[in-house]
Amino acid sequence: MPLLSVDEDLRARIEARLSEQFAARAAAAQRYGAEFTGLWHTAAQHILGGKLLRPRLLLALHEALTDPTADVIDSTTVLDLAAAVETLHYAFLLHDDVIDADVQRRHRPNLIASLRDEHPHPLLAPREALHWGQSGAILLGDLLLSAVHQSFARADLPHSRRLRALDLLEHTVTETVAGEQTDVALTDQVVPADLTTILAMSADKTATYTFELPLRLAAILAGRSPATEAHLALIARHLGLAFQLQDDLLSVFGDAARHGKDPYSDLREGKRTALIAYARMTSAWRGIEPRLGRSDLTEDDARRIRTLLEDCGARAFVANLVDEHASAARSLITGTESAGLLPPAAQRVLLAVAELLEGRES
Amino acid sequence: MPLLSVDEDLRARIEARLSEQFAARAAAAQRYGAEFTGLWHTAAQHILGGKLLRPRLLLALHEALTDPTADVIDSTTVLDLAAAVETLHYAFLLHDDVIDADVQRRHRPNLIASLRDEHPHPLLAPREALHWGQSGAILLGDLLLSAVHQSFARADLPHSRRLRALDLLEHTVTETVAGEQTDVALTDQVVPADLTTILAMSADKTATYTFELPLRLAAILAGRSPATEAHLALIARHLGLAFQLQDDLLSVFGDAARHGKDPYSDLREGKRTALIAYARMTSAWRGIEPRLGRSDLTEDDARRIRTLLEDCGARAFVANLVDEHASAARSLITGTESAGLLPPAAQRVLLAVAELLEGRES
Repeated sequence: MPLLSVDEDLRARIEARLSEQFAARAAAAQRYGAEFTGLWHTAAQHILGGKLLRPRLLLALHEALTDPTADVIDSTTVLDLAAAVETLHYAFLLHDDVIDADVQRRHRPNLIASLRDEHPHPLLAPREALHWGQSGAILLGDLLLSAVHQSFARADLPHSRRLRALDLLEHTVTETVAGEQTDVALTDQVVPADLTTILAMSADKTATYTFELPLRLAAILAGRSPATEAHLALIARHLGLAFQLQDDLLSVFGDAARHGKDPYSDLREGKRTALIAYARMTSAWRGIEPRLGRSDLTEDDARRIRTLLEDCGARAFVANLVDEHASAARSLITGTESAGLLPPAAQRVLLAVAELLEGRES
Repeated sequence: MPLLSVDEDLRARIEARLSEQFAARAAAAQRYGAEFTGLWHTAAQHILGGKLLRPRLLLALHEALTDPTADVIDSTTVLDLAAAVETLHYAFLLHDDVIDADVQRRHRPNLIASLRDEHPHPLLAPREALHWGQSGAILLGDLLLSAVHQSFARADLPHSRRLRALDLLEHTVTETVAGEQTDVALTDQVVPADLTTILAMSADKTATYTFELPLRLAAILAGRSPATEAHLALIARHLGLAFQLQDDLLSVFGDAARHGKDPYSDLREGKRTALIAYARMTSAWRGIEPRLGRSDLTEDDARRIRTLLEDCGARAFVANLVDEHASAARSLITGTESAGLLPPAAQRVLLAVAELLEGRES
């Protein structure tokens, strides 16, 4: 997903910075023994497998928003915060995987499974091994969440910009956790799975930290006005919803070999998505409900659910929502209000994102 | 445990500040719905039940270390950081309870049990209800850990003192998590339960944030030198070990009605404490091992283990270690090096702590 011609360079710089940071943490961990050092080494292997969407967005938009004749922030500071944005994403994934009891991510064993399986004591009982893996994920998530806050707190920025960045981080953490809690409430059937709740959950849980955080942070670091930040927040909400809804579609209808998620994991977990909320209102639900959320879901069950979701119109409904949100984002990006707030280079970066979201396959 | 004549006043001020903070968070949570608001209300009820040992220590020592003629920090800032120290303690307890699958704390249902039981949907299946409670504890821990970092990052302090405070927070989080990981490794039998490992784990997991954090933070806020901070770190390590070992003794031999812990929970969980590490080296181990760590441990089993721990000398060994560490702390507090670093009022606060640790029953 190239956001700019310099995109490969951005990716390499972010990966290098993340590698450096994790190597430093692993070195500092040595005084606490082999297990603690091992946790950092395993973490480094897992965090570097990602697409780096969020930090790339931040760097690309920051570059496009920066007026080189004005007060420019040191590039190391921007890179550190880009690494922090990716680290926050990974910290949330870790705790999410514990809550969902997942052991796979991007088609590979996740950190929990790595700790469970690669442990130097292969004679550990399965229950203890899983507990060791899940506890490691909780603890590493805490370390990374703390590290993200340290990066923001120490950022070499004018004080007012640092406070704006800290406000944004606080908002992001609150909204993401609130969204995650709603997701759990839906799964545990604490709240009913209506479409409004599911769309709000998707926006809070994923859209906020995936789009609102990097877009607004780019504006803050570039010294842009709160009005620009607010306008970007609106664009981010639409991009984020399009992204999450596309993700729900890919998880059920996409090519697992390409998107890399555990195939059918959403169906096996009975995840409450917009697809499911729509299907609940149709006669197809009778055929879906008994199979959904079964840990022993077969390939045949999954295929049957897919056909029902297609026939009842759920797939078309969600695909249409993706288009609508991508289109709303485009209008905001190129509209009259944008003219005074976003330079053409920034509009181009954001339009590239909107286009890629609509047709993405991974 | 009075640390100073003004101690009741300190406690009231900390409770009032914590109440205010949690009420504000619950109010801000309302836009995310009833479940998220409920999480904050439940959290407020639980965090206010504690002894507030850590923030009281910070406030009492800060007062004793402050030169009123010098650059004095605003009292609201100090109070906010005291509340943050208690909040950090509670954030660690929440994730600790998830990892240990505990549902009780201080003789009462913990937050996990409250969320599980007090839920507006009493027809929730037990499995989902427990999952809802444990997920809530993970998520609230994340929110509180973030809030602690925000308090440190925004503290109205001279920049150099804020950086020292952030360094201390980073050290505290790293060491506490490393200690917690070792504790899990001991429970899951990933590492052998030798005495050296267990003592290092106790110091890292509990002593650091219980004593080193408030003592060093008091010095930083009072503008004292790094040498004073380092000296207090040494004192804190001894006080912390005495505290944790005393806690291990109380959990097995104390009066559950007074100390308020789940009676015998350490024995039922098979917790690797100094008591157990000592007993492992004696012939009493044959009688202890088959009963230890059984979830169906009976009152009789527990009494039998207690007698064996007493007879084999484990209790006397640990009680002696408590005395040694308390005595080492006292020597450091009143020794020649202290004379130049700690004013008499600060020495009195620290001596009061050392004395109370030795004889405490709760």
